[in-house]
Amino acid sequence: MAKIGWAGLLPTLDRDSIVPLYLQIYEHLREAILAGTLPESTRLPPERTMAEELRVNRSTVVRAYRELVAGGLIDQRVGSGSRVAHLRAGQPERSPAVPWWVTLPPWRVGEFPMVLGELAAKHEPGRISFVQGVAPDEPSPLAELASSFERVARDPRLVLSYGDSEGYEPLRGAIAERMRARGASAIEPKNVVVLTGSTQGIMIVAQSLAEPGDEIVVEQPSYPGALQIFQICGLRAIAVPVDEEGMRVDHVEAILRTRKPRFIYTMPSLHNPTNATANLDRRERLITIARRAGVPIVEDDPYGPLLQRDLPPLVALAPDHVVYLSTFSKTIAPSLRIGWLAAPRTILERLLMRKQAHDMATSLYVQAAVHDYLERGYDAHVAQLRDELLIRRKIADDAIAATWPASIRISKPAGGFYLWATTPRELRARPLLDASERLGASFLFGEAFYPGQGGDHNFRLALTAATRSEIAEGIARIGKAIASLRA
Amino acid sequence: MAKIGWAGLLPTLDRDSIVPLYLQIYEHLREAILAGTLPESTRLPPERTMAEELRVNRSTVVRAYRELVAGGLIDQRVGSGSRVAHLRAGQPERSPAVPWWVTLPPWRVGEFPMVLGELAAKHEPGRISFVQGVAPDEPSPLAELASSFERVARDPRLVLSYGDSEGYEPLRGAIAERMRARGASAIEPKNVVVLTGSTQGIMIVAQSLAEPGDEIVVEQPSYPGALQIFQICGLRAIAVPVDEEGMRVDHVEAILRTRKPRFIYTMPSLHNPTNATANLDRRERLITIARRAGVPIVEDDPYGPLLQRDLPPLVALAPDHVVYLSTFSKTIAPSLRIGWLAAPRTILERLLMRKQAHDMATSLYVQAAVHDYLERGYDAHVAQLRDELLIRRKIADDAIAATWPASIRISKPAGGFYLWATTPRELRARPLLDASERLGASFLFGEAFYPGQGGDHNFRLALTAATRSEIAEGIARIGKAIASLRA
Repeated sequence: MAKIGWAGLLPTLDRDSIVPLYLQIYEHLREAILAGTLPESTRLPPERTMAEELRVNRSTVVRAYRELVAGGLIDQRVGSGSRVAHLRAGQPERSPAVPWWVTLPPWRVGEFPMVLGELAAKHEPGRISFVQGVAPDEPSPLAELASSFERVARDPRLVLSYGDSEGYEPLRGAIAERMRARGASAIEPKNVVVLTGSTQGIMIVAQSLAEPGDEIVVEQPSYPGALQIFQICGLRAIAVPVDEEGMRVDHVEAILRTRKPRFIYTMPSLHNPTNATANLDRRERLITIARRAGVPIVEDDPYGPLLQRDLPPLVALAPDHVVYLSTFSKTIAPSLRIGWLAAPRTILERLLMRKQAHDMATSLYVQAAVHDYLERGYDAHVAQLRDELLIRRKIADDAIAATWPASIRISKPAGGFYLWATTPRELRARPLLDASERLGASFLFGEAFYPGQGGDHNFRLALTAATRSEIAEGIARIGKAIASLRA
Repeated sequence: MAKIGWAGLLPTLDRDSIVPLYLQIYEHLREAILAGTLPESTRLPPERTMAEELRVNRSTVVRAYRELVAGGLIDQRVGSGSRVAHLRAGQPERSPAVPWWVTLPPWRVGEFPMVLGELAAKHEPGRISFVQGVAPDEPSPLAELASSFERVARDPRLVLSYGDSEGYEPLRGAIAERMRARGASAIEPKNVVVLTGSTQGIMIVAQSLAEPGDEIVVEQPSYPGALQIFQICGLRAIAVPVDEEGMRVDHVEAILRTRKPRFIYTMPSLHNPTNATANLDRRERLITIARRAGVPIVEDDPYGPLLQRDLPPLVALAPDHVVYLSTFSKTIAPSLRIGWLAAPRTILERLLMRKQAHDMATSLYVQAAVHDYLERGYDAHVAQLRDELLIRRKIADDAIAATWPASIRISKPAGGFYLWATTPRELRARPLLDASERLGASFLFGEAFYPGQGGDHNFRLALTAATRSEIAEGIARIGKAIASLRA
């Protein structure tokens, strides 16, 4: 998760200006609210926090907020702080008298920027981070990957050209071959489009298969990046719970009886954040139900190649009914930004056209290097990575057993990047994060994974973000934070 | 321009099936029409062409097309061939009886996929291509670029992490520094967001500053990739002509008197395809007019660093009113997929949020390598490239003077990648392309650059796509094609 949020929205104060500081703050926030950059019901930072960030007196911020209240731009309530008000008049009319950025179209991101801003892992020295879902530092693909890059770097056909929007033909072949090895026998290179990461695929699918206002079905909890995209695209998420066998298909069935979502977004293998994997029966039932209702499935499968057991992806069971997305970000390195989609020919052209419009083509040079790496070190690396993930989980389980109270429940399925924790009623995840950060450990709080309300009693540990030796210590620090809050 | 279009839409015929071939073709096209993959008034390939592509008898295709006519799905008229009909009933209702891909949202790409399909440069041996706007093979950045990649390839912080959505801090600094050197003194690293090519920037701006149905102002002719994006985003282009001093600002002024476009998209320096560069007076007038009307300017500047004279980009003259886009695709290598935007703080957060939703972040590894290259070989390379472009243009001018009739007019401004030609009334560009390809030379026809009707008497030569020594021969072949059509 990249860093974004409040930092960017803070005014740059001119301390030499004749305009008083409170007025500078007021004007900045007023414009942001009118422009929709701060949408309705966004929480503003508490006055004290804002004052600290801006290095002004608290009374300066209090005065700026009071002006905003007076202007009907924010509401203040005891307990819930300051929130952007519902603007009855709607957006101001476009006219030369109003700055152009104040009349831009609505922003459609809701409170997401705030959440993502809070997610941002501050790189503080000494802090052990369980925040980002990055591949672990060991086993490292770096040495072999560097050789692959060297082999392609001097070939002008690979560096000095755009390549096709579909992607580098040999890489598409190698991807299709690996998908067939996992049971998706119908996947040919022509079904595969290489993407700049699978996030791009989620955006392309969201824009191609649905329109603003349409409903879709998503798991709850689910991957925050996908939720952010659906929100920006104006899609309304119908949430379906996840248990230790993955998406609750009985809920999907009930929903499809009365509603017509545009697609079902699911991560059936090593689900982010719960690590759950749907068994074969559940996979088949989901497909049957979706097929009967005529609703396509979007299978997001970044962790599928890391499964500890043989389970066919959904696309193997219904190649005409599933749009499949995956990536090398988790199995090789996120910095490559190489993912892919596999789709039936019926909609491939439509997806490809959007891919082309989004960024023309994915870096041919990086694609060629990844192809070279697939031919060499990749499979051995993935096998090592699978073992590493089990070892890390064992370390985490042992540390949790030793340092956390039994009232914190943790997700059972192992083998993936994550561990999903549920706190008891009296312990919310956000205060726990604050306390943990003070003690030198950080993680992601659960709200980020919830399309609607909820998640405030959950948090996720990415067991891959820290080094192996840091895991036990980081978990012990969180254990101390739990104890401090219960004391 | 990447390859896309008809090839992907052709049915895969099963010659062992009991379903007759004509019926397989009919069913395939019927589904594509109902699904909107072939939108209304799309031209189908002539029967003969389709038959050749599919390796079937012409009568098989004739029969398939006849069935489509009978079903009201296509119209056939003498002279204009077969076109997808207006489907009176609209889209079929979503129901389990109708395949899901038939009821997807409208596709909004008009005839563009067709045009792009036809653009596709077929890599035929011996053919000299003036099609793609790629950097020339000489001077080559490859050796130094490869060293830059080697230097960063073994650093786990650069390869095994996502990086921030804004981009790699040192690269943003180097970009801002170069923009300041061109006169944009207000640009700081914090105004810069690194993108996966500038195409991504056009998409982000189109989605952030406007909504489907909104009007925008674009040059005519203009960059086909941008036109495709605006079309997919549902934006309506108000076209403004370009002369040898760039966008006709007097037309912009007249338009802004009565209409309220969301933004003005312009390429003021070494414009694609005419190579025109707006002088300082025109730049200042455009800004004055846009500012007065409260309409922001989107400055697309892929070729700006290649200008032979010092001219400030628009963003230098009005940093609060211009969203600036550029790329290293033209100055280093397209395969890098590294571009950037620079925007005022008032809208930066909004653009950044979309960048994040589109592909999370641009490859940190490639960004770090490009930053390394900027510190070393870049400036010398760009200086050499400037010289190379003038030399190539001189070769082209000499060849044109020697082998083309004077009735073909060519754009005067030199120094960029392109040469824009206008044919006399009796000579259309598409038949000329056909004739040229038969003689072993290819280029892009003008319609691709026109947001509305027009461009059928224009074509573009990219003087960088061929080697220096091929230019004269390629132009001579086009000269022969012209002569053959006038005979």
